[in-house]
Amino acid sequence: MEQYPEQLNGIFQALADPTRRAVLRRLGKGPASISELAEPFDMALPSFMKHIHLLEESGWIQTHKEGRVRTCTIEKKSFAAVEEWLSEQRALWEGRTDRLELFVTAVQKKEKSK
Amino acid sequence: MEQYPEQLNGIFQALADPTRRAVLRRLGKGPASISELAEPFDMALPSFMKHIHLLEESGWIQTHKEGRVRTCTIEKKSFAAVEEWLSEQRALWEGRTDRLELFVTAVQKKEKSK
Repeated sequence: MEQYPEQLNGIFQALADPTRRAVLRRLGKGPASISELAEPFDMALPSFMKHIHLLEESGWIQTHKEGRVRTCTIEKKSFAAVEEWLSEQRALWEGRTDRLELFVTAVQKKEKSK
Repeated sequence: MEQYPEQLNGIFQALADPTRRAVLRRLGKGPASISELAEPFDMALPSFMKHIHLLEESGWIQTHKEGRVRTCTIEKKSFAAVEEWLSEQRALWEGRTDRLELFVTAVQKKEKSK
Protein backbone atom coordinates (compact mmCIF):
# COMPACT_ATOMS: atom_id res chain seq x y z
CA MET A 1 0.00 0.00 0.00
CA GLU A 2 1.02 3.59 -0.58
CA GLN A 3 2.21 5.34 2.55
CA TYR A 4 1.42 8.93 1.59
CA PRO A 5 -1.21 8.95 -1.18
CA GLU A 6 -1.98 12.67 -0.73
CA GLN A 7 1.67 13.60 -1.12
CA LEU A 8 2.03 11.38 -4.20
CA ASN A 9 -0.95 13.14 -5.81
CA GLY A 10 0.81 16.49 -5.51
CA ILE A 11 4.19 15.09 -6.49
CA PHE A 12 2.89 13.61 -9.74
CA GLN A 13 0.57 16.56 -10.44
CA ALA A 14 3.60 18.87 -10.28
CA LEU A 15 5.37 16.75 -12.92
CA ALA A 16 2.44 16.92 -15.37
CA ASP A 17 3.66 20.23 -16.81
CA PRO A 18 6.71 20.91 -19.04
CA THR A 19 7.54 24.27 -17.38
CA ARG A 20 7.63 22.70 -13.92
CA ARG A 21 9.73 19.78 -15.16
CA ALA A 22 12.15 22.24 -16.78
CA VAL A 23 12.41 24.19 -13.50
CA LEU A 24 13.22 20.96 -11.64
CA ARG A 25 15.82 20.04 -14.28
CA ARG A 26 17.47 23.44 -13.81
CA LEU A 27 17.36 23.11 -10.00
CA GLY A 28 18.93 19.65 -10.25
CA LYS A 29 22.12 21.52 -11.20
CA GLY A 30 21.95 23.73 -8.09
CA PRO A 31 19.87 26.46 -6.39
CA ALA A 32 18.64 29.42 -8.47
CA SER A 33 16.71 32.65 -7.99
CA ILE A 34 13.16 33.09 -9.32
CA SER A 35 14.38 35.52 -12.01
CA GLU A 36 17.08 33.06 -13.20
CA LEU A 37 14.48 30.30 -13.31
CA ALA A 38 11.91 32.44 -15.16
CA GLU A 39 14.40 33.72 -17.75
CA PRO A 40 14.14 30.90 -20.37
CA PHE A 41 10.32 31.10 -20.43
CA ASP A 42 8.19 33.47 -22.46
CA MET A 43 5.71 33.78 -19.60
CA ALA A 44 4.33 36.59 -17.41
CA LEU A 45 5.80 36.50 -13.90
CA PRO A 46 2.44 35.85 -12.13
CA SER A 47 1.90 32.77 -14.35
CA PHE A 48 5.43 31.58 -13.66
CA MET A 49 4.94 32.11 -9.92
CA LYS A 50 1.90 29.79 -9.99
CA HIS A 51 4.25 27.02 -11.15
CA ILE A 52 6.73 27.90 -8.41
CA HIS A 53 3.99 27.82 -5.76
CA LEU A 54 2.73 24.48 -7.00
CA LEU A 55 6.25 23.05 -6.87
CA GLU A 56 6.66 24.39 -3.34
CA GLU A 57 3.27 23.15 -2.08
CA SER A 58 3.84 19.69 -3.53
CA GLY A 59 7.18 19.44 -1.74
CA TRP A 60 9.42 19.50 -4.82
CA ILE A 61 11.23 22.70 -3.92
CA GLN A 62 11.97 24.97 -0.97
CA THR A 63 12.24 28.72 -1.36
CA HIS A 64 14.13 31.16 0.81
CA LYS A 65 14.02 34.96 0.61
CA GLU A 66 17.04 37.10 1.33
CA GLY A 67 16.57 40.81 0.71
CA ARG A 68 14.67 41.04 -2.57
CA VAL A 69 15.89 37.74 -3.97
CA ARG A 70 13.98 34.50 -3.52
CA THR A 71 16.16 31.43 -4.06
CA CYS A 72 14.77 27.98 -4.89
CA THR A 73 16.34 24.66 -3.90
CA ILE A 74 15.24 21.20 -5.02
CA GLU A 75 13.97 18.67 -2.47
CA LYS A 76 15.65 15.33 -3.09
CA LYS A 77 13.08 13.43 -1.01
CA SER A 78 10.39 13.95 -3.68
CA PHE A 79 12.57 12.06 -6.16
CA ALA A 80 12.88 9.34 -3.54
CA ALA A 81 9.06 9.16 -3.30
CA VAL A 82 8.76 8.71 -7.09
CA GLU A 83 11.55 6.12 -7.07
CA GLU A 84 9.85 4.22 -4.25
CA TRP A 85 6.57 4.18 -6.15
CA LEU A 86 8.35 2.96 -9.30
CA SER A 87 10.24 0.21 -7.54
CA GLU A 88 7.05 -1.00 -5.84
CA GLN A 89 5.46 -1.27 -9.29
CA ARG A 90 8.53 -2.96 -10.72
CA ALA A 91 8.51 -5.50 -7.90
CA LEU A 92 4.88 -6.38 -8.69
CA TRP A 93 5.71 -6.65 -12.37
CA GLU A 94 8.82 -8.75 -11.82
CA GLY A 95 7.04 -10.96 -9.32
CA ARG A 96 4.51 -11.60 -12.03
CA THR A 97 7.20 -12.37 -14.62
CA ASP A 98 8.91 -14.73 -12.17
CA ARG A 99 5.66 -16.61 -11.63
CA LEU A 100 5.15 -16.76 -15.40
CA GLU A 101 8.69 -18.11 -15.87
CA LEU A 102 8.15 -20.76 -13.19
CA PHE A 103 4.93 -21.77 -14.92
CA VAL A 104 6.57 -21.96 -18.38
CA THR A 105 9.52 -23.98 -17.00
CA ALA A 106 7.10 -26.36 -15.26
CA VAL A 107 5.12 -26.83 -18.49
CA GLN A 108 8.33 -27.43 -20.50
CA LYS A 109 9.52 -30.07 -17.99
CA LYS A 110 6.14 -31.80 -18.17
CA GLU A 111 6.32 -31.78 -21.98
CA LYS A 112 9.85 -33.28 -21.95
CA SER A 113 8.92 -36.03 -19.51
CA LYS A 114 6.11 -37.21 -21.80
CA MET B 1 16.04 17.67 -23.29
CA GLU B 2 12.82 15.74 -22.98
CA GLN B 3 11.97 13.73 -26.07
CA TYR B 4 8.20 13.53 -25.68
CA PRO B 5 7.01 16.34 -23.38
CA GLU B 6 3.34 15.92 -24.37
CA GLN B 7 3.42 12.23 -23.50
CA LEU B 8 5.12 12.90 -20.17
CA ASN B 9 2.37 15.41 -19.25
CA GLY B 10 -0.25 12.70 -19.67
CA ILE B 11 1.86 10.02 -18.02
CA PHE B 12 2.38 12.07 -14.86
CA GLN B 13 -1.18 13.48 -14.88
CA ALA B 14 -2.47 9.91 -14.84
CA LEU B 15 -0.40 9.16 -11.72
CA ALA B 16 -1.77 12.17 -9.79
CA ASP B 17 -4.79 10.21 -8.58
CA PRO B 18 -4.94 7.36 -6.01
CA THR B 19 -7.63 5.40 -7.89
CA ARG B 20 -5.58 5.38 -11.07
CA ARG B 21 -2.41 4.40 -9.19
CA ALA B 22 -4.35 1.56 -7.51
CA VAL B 23 -5.59 0.35 -10.91
CA LEU B 24 -2.02 0.32 -12.23
CA ARG B 25 -0.85 -1.57 -9.13
CA ARG B 26 -3.55 -4.19 -9.74
CA LEU B 27 -2.66 -4.44 -13.46
CA GLY B 28 1.01 -4.87 -12.55
CA LYS B 29 -0.02 -8.33 -11.34
CA GLY B 30 -1.67 -9.18 -14.68
CA PRO B 31 -4.56 -8.21 -16.99
CA ALA B 32 -8.03 -7.68 -15.49
CA SER B 33 -11.56 -6.88 -16.64
CA ILE B 34 -13.17 -3.48 -15.95
CA SER B 35 -15.54 -5.04 -13.41
CA GLU B 36 -12.69 -6.73 -11.53
CA LEU B 37 -10.79 -3.44 -11.49
CA ALA B 38 -13.82 -1.42 -10.33
CA GLU B 39 -14.77 -3.86 -7.56
CA PRO B 40 -12.58 -2.47 -4.71
CA PHE B 41 -13.82 1.10 -5.28
CA ASP B 42 -16.97 2.67 -3.89
CA MET B 43 -17.51 4.57 -7.12
CA ALA B 44 -20.22 4.80 -9.80
CA LEU B 45 -19.16 3.01 -13.00
CA PRO B 46 -19.20 6.19 -15.18
CA SER B 47 -16.77 7.88 -12.74
CA PHE B 48 -14.55 4.81 -12.71
CA MET B 49 -14.62 4.68 -16.53
CA LYS B 50 -13.26 8.24 -16.67
CA HIS B 51 -10.18 6.99 -14.83
CA ILE B 52 -9.88 4.04 -17.23
CA HIS B 53 -10.16 6.35 -20.26
CA LEU B 54 -7.52 8.70 -18.84
CA LEU B 55 -5.18 5.76 -18.25
CA GLU B 56 -5.79 4.55 -21.81
CA GLU B 57 -5.35 7.99 -23.43
CA SER B 58 -2.14 8.66 -21.52
CA GLY B 59 -0.70 5.34 -22.72
CA TRP B 60 -0.61 3.57 -19.35
CA ILE B 61 -3.01 0.79 -20.32
CA GLN B 62 -4.48 -0.91 -23.36
CA THR B 63 -8.03 -2.23 -23.37
CA HIS B 64 -9.47 -5.01 -25.50
CA LYS B 65 -13.14 -5.98 -25.77
CA GLU B 66 -14.22 -9.57 -26.25
CA GLY B 67 -17.96 -10.15 -26.17
CA ARG B 68 -19.23 -8.07 -23.26
CA VAL B 69 -15.99 -8.08 -21.32
CA ARG B 70 -13.35 -5.34 -21.68
CA THR B 71 -9.94 -6.44 -20.45
CA CYS B 72 -7.18 -4.00 -19.44
CA THR B 73 -3.44 -4.61 -19.76
CA ILE B 74 -0.64 -2.43 -18.44
CA GLU B 75 1.80 -0.76 -20.86
CA LYS B 76 5.33 -1.30 -19.60
CA LYS B 77 6.73 1.46 -21.82
CA SER B 78 5.10 4.18 -19.67
CA PHE B 79 7.10 2.95 -16.67
CA ALA B 80 10.18 3.16 -18.88
CA ALA B 81 9.33 6.81 -19.70
CA VAL B 82 9.08 7.67 -15.97
CA GLU B 83 12.31 5.79 -15.26
CA GLU B 84 14.08 7.62 -18.07
CA TRP B 85 12.91 10.98 -16.71
CA LEU B 86 14.06 10.02 -13.19
CA SER B 87 17.48 8.83 -14.31
CA GLU B 88 18.00 12.02 -16.33
CA GLN B 89 17.27 14.01 -13.15
CA ARG B 90 19.51 11.75 -11.07
CA ALA B 91 22.35 12.21 -13.57
CA LEU B 92 22.04 16.00 -13.24
CA TRP B 93 21.98 15.72 -9.49
CA GLU B 94 24.91 13.31 -9.31
CA GLY B 95 26.90 15.36 -11.80
CA ARG B 96 26.40 18.28 -9.48
CA THR B 97 27.49 16.28 -6.42
CA ASP B 98 30.55 15.02 -8.31
CA ARG B 99 31.53 18.58 -9.19
CA LEU B 100 30.99 19.59 -5.56
CA GLU B 101 33.18 16.69 -4.38
CA LEU B 102 35.93 17.63 -6.83
CA PHE B 103 35.73 21.20 -5.55
CA VAL B 104 35.86 20.15 -1.89
CA THR B 105 38.79 17.79 -2.54
CA ALA B 106 40.64 20.54 -4.42
CA VAL B 107 40.06 22.98 -1.54
CA GLN B 108 41.24 20.40 1.03
CA LYS B 109 44.43 19.74 -0.97
CA LYS B 110 45.08 23.46 -1.18
CA GLU B 111 44.57 23.81 2.58
CA LYS B 112 46.98 20.92 3.30
CA SER B 113 49.70 22.30 1.05
CA LYS B 114 49.65 25.64 2.88
